[in-house]
Amino acid sequence: MIGLMEMPQTVEWALHCCWLLAQSDGESPVPRRRIAEFFDLPEPYLAKALKQLVAAGILTSVPGVSGGYRLARPADRITALEVVQAMRSEATMFRCTEIRQQGPVGLTAQQCTRPCGIAKVMHQAELAWRAELARTTIAGLVENAPGVSERRAAKWLGPQSRLRRGTPTT
Amino acid sequence: MIGLMEMPQTVEWALHCCWLLAQSDGESPVPRRRIAEFFDLPEPYLAKALKQLVAAGILTSVPGVSGGYRLARPADRITALEVVQAMRSEATMFRCTEIRQQGPVGLTAQQCTRPCGIAKVMHQAELAWRAELARTTIAGLVENAPGVSERRAAKWLGPQSRLRRGTPTT
Repeated sequence: MIGLMEMPQTVEWALHCCWLLAQSDGESPVPRRRIAEFFDLPEPYLAKALKQLVAAGILTSVPGVSGGYRLARPADRITALEVVQAMRSEATMFRCTEIRQQGPVGLTAQQCTRPCGIAKVMHQAELAWRAELARTTIAGLVENAPGVSERRAAKWLGPQSRLRRGTPTT
Repeated sequence: MIGLMEMPQTVEWALHCCWLLAQSDGESPVPRRRIAEFFDLPEPYLAKALKQLVAAGILTSVPGVSGGYRLARPADRITALEVVQAMRSEATMFRCTEIRQQGPVGLTAQQCTRPCGIAKVMHQAELAWRAELARTTIAGLVENAPGVSERRAAKWLGPQSRLRRGTPTT
């Protein structure tokens, strides 16, 4: 069971998948089966996450026998925030239900034209969280990954690897 | 149904309850029934939230006929972060399952002595969120609330109100 305020596990998957696809030459799509095998993830669940990334304009899906997935944009133009948001079911973490308007001495709607101080601080905290995730791109994750991770991806992608072709990350 | 990464509604309740208790004289406890009525909240669910706040050392529960709840510490020494954390079932939002160690070409545990770059950015974002919430205290929420909210609380608390006694917030 996923606890309250815990992120869906697909957030971890999605970020890792984008990282893997950023290691490819960016031309030939990487088959879904190859992505699932690389991370040992259940393909049907991964399929759903990949679809969400396509819907968010982060990945492009190429149909057909030699089809698969690739980044829809250069890796330096995809932020961690975009990937995380694509996996979330809610737009915001905190939802104000205006309880200050409830009860026998509740405020009237007319008295509540400005947001409640509690909603405000929760919103500011969420903005700080977003700002941090928006600062990191998939290209940044690739650059900061240790060489051993890069070699592992290159090994799996084979001729599709950007390292083989000398393709830059971005 | 509560969506993934959405905060439990009791976070909103708990912050408002602490705000209300900060409006009392800090001596005579406010009965649970009075708190529930003030916000028109279901008392059995509120009881659970209040228990969590007592367990976290934020509120003190006074048993007996004239019992109830009061802040366990001055309002300027209780942060919004502490209240939010008391309501959460998970210690962190993002849980790294080390998927880089999975699959046929996965890294070994020995190769993973440093945290994964993806876990790192998710952790940093959460630290930014926490820092923002840690900056706000219950006393700050009271100070920044409009006068109309203050008068509403004073009306409900009656002789227990800090305004009647001239008790400072902190």
